[in-house]
Amino acid sequence: MPQLRKDPVVDRWVIIAPERADRPNALVRMPPEREGERELCPFCPGNEAMTPPQVLAQHEDGNGWTLRVVPNRYPALRTEIQMSRSGHGLFDAMAGVGAHEVVIETREHTQTLAEASAEQIAAVFRAWQERMTDLSRDIRLKSIAAFKNHGQPAGATLFHAHSQLVALPFVPPALATEIRCAQRHFEEKERCIFCDVLEQELREKERVVLETDGAVSISPWAARSPFETWIFPRAHRSAFESATGQELLAVADALRVMLRKMDVALERPAFNLWLHTMPLREPNNDWYHWHLELKPVLTLYAGFEWSSGCHINPTPPEEAAGFLRQTEV
Amino acid sequence: MPQLRKDPVVDRWVIIAPERADRPNALVRMPPEREGERELCPFCPGNEAMTPPQVLAQHEDGNGWTLRVVPNRYPALRTEIQMSRSGHGLFDAMAGVGAHEVVIETREHTQTLAEASAEQIAAVFRAWQERMTDLSRDIRLKSIAAFKNHGQPAGATLFHAHSQLVALPFVPPALATEIRCAQRHFEEKERCIFCDVLEQELREKERVVLETDGAVSISPWAARSPFETWIFPRAHRSAFESATGQELLAVADALRVMLRKMDVALERPAFNLWLHTMPLREPNNDWYHWHLELKPVLTLYAGFEWSSGCHINPTPPEEAAGFLRQTEV
Repeated sequence: MPQLRKDPVVDRWVIIAPERADRPNALVRMPPEREGERELCPFCPGNEAMTPPQVLAQHEDGNGWTLRVVPNRYPALRTEIQMSRSGHGLFDAMAGVGAHEVVIETREHTQTLAEASAEQIAAVFRAWQERMTDLSRDIRLKSIAAFKNHGQPAGATLFHAHSQLVALPFVPPALATEIRCAQRHFEEKERCIFCDVLEQELREKERVVLETDGAVSISPWAARSPFETWIFPRAHRSAFESATGQELLAVADALRVMLRKMDVALERPAFNLWLHTMPLREPNNDWYHWHLELKPVLTLYAGFEWSSGCHINPTPPEEAAGFLRQTEV
Repeated sequence: MPQLRKDPVVDRWVIIAPERADRPNALVRMPPEREGERELCPFCPGNEAMTPPQVLAQHEDGNGWTLRVVPNRYPALRTEIQMSRSGHGLFDAMAGVGAHEVVIETREHTQTLAEASAEQIAAVFRAWQERMTDLSRDIRLKSIAAFKNHGQPAGATLFHAHSQLVALPFVPPALATEIRCAQRHFEEKERCIFCDVLEQELREKERVVLETDGAVSISPWAARSPFETWIFPRAHRSAFESATGQELLAVADALRVMLRKMDVALERPAFNLWLHTMPLREPNNDWYHWHLELKPVLTLYAGFEWSSGCHINPTPPEEAAGFLRQTEV
């Protein structure tokens, strides 16, 4: 029987409809991954001139770079323009001030994030931190979206592993809603809603995929799509930029295991991964808790979703969590 | 240069980033359409037994049905269950009460909506009206999402032309936001915000694709994706169910022309189409204006969109409107 579930943080009703899973082609098949041509890959060693000049690089002794951050060649927003706002009758506009950077996560053309070590993934997180800290000096920039598209069905146009940072001159709606709701919960309870959710999930177990000393991965109560999972550091901290090396490593290791489980359980699906953290320059607070959200691409954002802003999920999160929990990697 | 634009109705900032259009594979290529096998098509004449019993049919004299409405075989929600709400610690749920119906728009397996006549499209709208009026008798149902997915990249699992109706036991967030903002504008101005937008667009012309006696199609100021267009009846009316036959025919004809223009200009793209109208059983009001929203599938909903709730559109709406305006059909 279908059930409607409300996300406890953002009051989002989701339709959990197991019968939808029975229809033919219920889940999207990912087309075979093309690796692209290595000699033309702008992210491969030797092709550094194909990208704009790097803004950050990490190195291992004597072995060249292990990670590079470069401005996006096709930026959605730009830092080098003047902020201005204008009205146009009923319509409002502002200059496209912001930044759009690409984190080249590895030297190896074919190495996916699932095949990286926890240390390598933590190095990616450190690069995000470092760039966020640097970009936060520009007070026109209010928040940063850090995300990764893996595979063509997830929106990746290049195979070589990379993530992206988009600095925005406003707080985007998905984050604004999360913050508003977390504040409301704290006003009422004087507790972090995310810590409360983790406490309940760890007690009930059925939606927990993974728990380690430093991190917890759950399939959320009102998951919007099959096998959506969230990864939390156990340590309450509102700003990702201030997470310690140990905290980053714990989340990196949990992400590594989750990606491997997904690769085994779901046959190397395309996926989207993103970070939710406080807007830039906000002091740490007691009510927000940074985390990662991970979503394999198994359903499409189609007419119903565009029309309503609601989601239909054919896979109950308890089933997804149970399946991933049992998947050996 | 990128620009941020705010939708005048729902305060949604969209990134208009023309430079993103230059990157390789900026727009999604739609895989070749498979027509499926006709003998196995549950929507073809002769295969009526493959669908649940019809709830509505339209006929031409002596030639069998021309349109059928049937319950979805894989429903997201169901009418035949009891409404109940429950709490589960921090989490909330309600029974999946609702309805999920399929409108089979034509007898002809290969006829797309773009190839239908204005009268045929108006007949589809009448079927939506009739089903919405019937479903509105169930007071547990609060609103209806009427939408169409055409082509696999748009989420269609069957080729034969069809649209869908999902009756929901709540007002979904996209509609709730639109209503709240339209009310706010009316409180301030005592005018319909949609009528105001149309007035400005018809004066400025550059985002108008089509204007007829009864309907106007525009590429909206803050279009979320390339070639997104909205179709409005000129007659102000808040509830789609109460639109007259003449109003429906005017919008149907505008939709027909828009679909043909898209087919020519964009090489028969997959598309999503949806209706925005007031929740069920609301008396007509002065501040909401029903309309259609149409979006060819040329970009993906990926990590940035999931992370932020924002959109990046590489095609300025003025360019899209100019291109579609000049497309002869």
